[in-house]
Amino acid sequence: MCRWLSYIGDPVYLEKLVFEPRHSLVEQSLHAEQAKTPTNGDGFGLGWYDERPTPGLYREILPAWNDPNLRSLAHHIRSGLFFAHVRASTGTHTSRTNCHPFSNGQYLFMHNGQIGDYPLVRRSLEMMIEDEFYEGRQGSTDSELIFCLMLTLGLQQDPHRAIRRTIEVVENEMKVRGATSPFRFTACLSNGKSVCAIRHASDDKPPSLYWRKRDDHVIVVSEPLDTESDSWKAVAPNHTLHVEGDLTISEEATL
Amino acid sequence: MCRWLSYIGDPVYLEKLVFEPRHSLVEQSLHAEQAKTPTNGDGFGLGWYDERPTPGLYREILPAWNDPNLRSLAHHIRSGLFFAHVRASTGTHTSRTNCHPFSNGQYLFMHNGQIGDYPLVRRSLEMMIEDEFYEGRQGSTDSELIFCLMLTLGLQQDPHRAIRRTIEVVENEMKVRGATSPFRFTACLSNGKSVCAIRHASDDKPPSLYWRKRDDHVIVVSEPLDTESDSWKAVAPNHTLHVEGDLTISEEATL
Amino acid sequence: MCRWLSYIGDPVYLEKLVFEPRHSLVEQSLHAEQAKTPTNGDGFGLGWYDERPTPGLYREILPAWNDPNLRSLAHHIRSGLFFAHVRASTGTHTSRTNCHPFSNGQYLFMHNGQIGDYPLVRRSLEMMIEDEFYEGRQGSTDSELIFCLMLTLGLQQDPHRAIRRTIEVVENEMKVRGATSPFRFTACLSNGKSVCAIRHASDDKPPSLYWRKRDDHVIVVSEPLDTESDSWKAVAPNHTLHVEGDLTISEEATL
Amino acid sequence: MCRWLSYIGDPVYLEKLVFEPRHSLVEQSLHAEQAKTPTNGDGFGLGWYDERPTPGLYREILPAWNDPNLRSLAHHIRSGLFFAHVRASTGTHTSRTNCHPFSNGQYLFMHNGQIGDYPLVRRSLEMMIEDEFYEGRQGSTDSELIFCLMLTLGLQQDPHRAIRRTIEVVENEMKVRGATSPFRFTACLSNGKSVCAIRHASDDKPPSLYWRKRDDHVIVVSEPLDTESDSWKAVAPNHTLHVEGDLTISEEATL
Repeated sequence: MCRWLSYIGDPVYLEKLVFEPRHSLVEQSLHAEQAKTPTNGDGFGLGWYDERPTPGLYREILPAWNDPNLRSLAHHIRSGLFFAHVRASTGTHTSRTNCHPFSNGQYLFMHNGQIGDYPLVRRSLEMMIEDEFYEGRQGSTDSELIFCLMLTLGLQQDPHRAIRRTIEVVENEMKVRGATSPFRFTACLSNGKSVCAIRHASDDKPPSLYWRKRDDHVIVVSEPLDTESDSWKAVAPNHTLHVEGDLTISEEATL
Repeated sequence: MCRWLSYIGDPVYLEKLVFEPRHSLVEQSLHAEQAKTPTNGDGFGLGWYDERPTPGLYREILPAWNDPNLRSLAHHIRSGLFFAHVRASTGTHTSRTNCHPFSNGQYLFMHNGQIGDYPLVRRSLEMMIEDEFYEGRQGSTDSELIFCLMLTLGLQQDPHRAIRRTIEVVENEMKVRGATSPFRFTACLSNGKSVCAIRHASDDKPPSLYWRKRDDHVIVVSEPLDTESDSWKAVAPNHTLHVEGDLTISEEATL
Repeated sequence: MCRWLSYIGDPVYLEKLVFEPRHSLVEQSLHAEQAKTPTNGDGFGLGWYDERPTPGLYREILPAWNDPNLRSLAHHIRSGLFFAHVRASTGTHTSRTNCHPFSNGQYLFMHNGQIGDYPLVRRSLEMMIEDEFYEGRQGSTDSELIFCLMLTLGLQQDPHRAIRRTIEVVENEMKVRGATSPFRFTACLSNGKSVCAIRHASDDKPPSLYWRKRDDHVIVVSEPLDTESDSWKAVAPNHTLHVEGDLTISEEATL
Repeated sequence: MCRWLSYIGDPVYLEKLVFEPRHSLVEQSLHAEQAKTPTNGDGFGLGWYDERPTPGLYREILPAWNDPNLRSLAHHIRSGLFFAHVRASTGTHTSRTNCHPFSNGQYLFMHNGQIGDYPLVRRSLEMMIEDEFYEGRQGSTDSELIFCLMLTLGLQQDPHRAIRRTIEVVENEMKVRGATSPFRFTACLSNGKSVCAIRHASDDKPPSLYWRKRDDHVIVVSEPLDTESDSWKAVAPNHTLHVEGDLTISEEATL
């Protein structure tokens, strides 16, 4: 399991969310409270949008609490739409190519959860990836595989449909191959203009997902960044949350 | 704070202690129970003696739970006297040169604790190090500094005296410079033939230290490796434990 | 392109070949003489056999000339059959999972060369890997893919046939998909008892491969470790070299 | 020895100098032409000024040619005053704290060269560092030591005098201690407003140093970034080059 956050709104320095809050993402890398494991020390990553057509990416295998580069970058990089992720491996290696966020063109993707019995279904799911996205696969995680499937299933054309189809395809393959562990899928996507977060599970235990809207920004997080608990709203299980560039928010069922 | 273990006895594969016990050192890197912080993810190290005149050393900045090299090395390296250490930084950087154990000639040293208000006294303590050992200082930790002081103060000639003198020198300098935080010093030394462990603090809270003797070996640890709690004995505060090559054990007051 | 060496014979410390010769493998990591690129700084690896049923493995993303752990391990590990490899990436990422040697059960494999137009044929070749070996694939290199194909094509039953079949399969797929760059394949395999080295190319430029037999050992290398040039013999293009445990040597055509 | 570049002028993306030129700094990390060693693979670093009061810093132990983070950061970070450095160690460890540039408050410093017989004089030079700067010393290089000396000797008050005094102090100490190797010192300093580059040696072989002025910027480099050789001017041996914020240039003797 992992912890992540996403920000959309008026540009801020990344440290404002990554380091400064009482229960910042870096704090969560040591002491997550709503995750199966408190420690998220198997690498981390930043992805951010600026004036360039594709997002910036900084991914590292050290723990997030431990990296002076992260501190300096978060102090100097300002963005109006960014992702940050701290990783707790569910089995695959700790390498930069297995760290989130993943990117393809203008898209960013990050994930908390897992495909149950991943080794059972990995190969057949990989065979469904379109060549153009298969070539871009650099690591071995189930998370990157899910992202490749979404791209294959029409993310650029119809994101909501691509998400739904990906969930169906993964769950169907798990069923066919006899997977007994659940599919847990709490993830975040962006095309650089809007943010889409997903909270889904094949059983009744989707990982936690919260959001908070203020005048000039929306934050979506695995768990709240501070103790103002009534300011954070949970996303309903098996729902997606869309945050448009003008901060309009909508929620709909994943399936 | 950190966690460490030391083994002396019939040669065994390092994994026997580093990975296999229920509360192995690698398990302690994620879930230490008797330390101020449960996570010891700021690097780790192995030091071991074999037929070579100086010990082998493997130190890495990744968390111990995260390193396939450590798993393979601990599976393949067998030793009759070895050290293993998982680090939780008390302020200095995460670099290999700051990871324990430290070595000099045939000596190994590792430490759990800290010199209180280290920045206050670092410089004047460093000035006391003899040139020959100053040159060998590679990192910036208080732990390596303590080791250099012990070497300066006659470790090769009279280890017990060198330990006592080092404690006196550190505590005196802390007093002179007005340090208000305590000196916590639970450490382990070896010359390749015997093991000497120290449990000391300038206040009444020396970090934990345990040992267990079996027929063919002695283990000294920050905290027990398993739940056979009556088999582990605590070293008394402000005492050193000596384990000779024939597994004879003696304990004496540090000061 | 990469540089590698393999040793079989009376046990020696690894440093004897990795560091000590005038043109040692570590020296070759900075100044290879018979390779397209002089610098082999994109990671390295050691694989060695001892009393354990499977080989030890140490792989790192730093340059080999730069790693104090490598120096200490090579000083302390002794083996009668080992591999060492310094990597120059031909496009894939620098991660430990992309470093050689690769291992599977008792097998070790390392490679210098490349599958021409790898992105064209990667996917269809990966589809030929048997499930059991596909699961073991951790990285994204063409080298590891070749190893998986050899395992699939009967390495355990008939190594010479598996090598020949792998070359045929790779070259056929390259032809079918219209690859225009050549297949360059100079590699080394071991089951822990004997060593098999391959020097092959689909054009007339197979990477260099040499060997030298002394009373108590045989060394197989990408390029000679010293300037006693008449003591090193080149393996003929498109031939494999077999070195048995008793140091018997035979050479035969790959196809 | 190392290679470095410094830019002052209209803001540009860092990749414009770090990656794009024919003989870019990253190209120089593999194939330096005017250095004793062609390979500068022992870490690298970026330092850049933006709207924040202190500069950003990204330092890494991997070779520069090998780091996807560097590529992304150089594509996304834009600055009107930045430093970039690729390192070839002259003996000290490869750790981030030994990578250039070094920073203190608003200052950046980077260096190519070395204090001859460094172990002979290291300690006595370190003793001259003022406490406030000694505390900030994180690594063990002669380069960082020189920076600490310049800060001690009044860099903030009178940079030219601080440089001259530092050279005198280092050369005097080398003489006193009987150092026989030369002091080579080609370095660059900035306070965020102007750039000061130094080309000095105690013998007649100061490392190379060039600059080029265009309408909207000045570049200072270890060696030219392209083959327009008549556009690059060499700084005279034992001279410093000052580039003001308005791109006014002046040169004066170091001593």
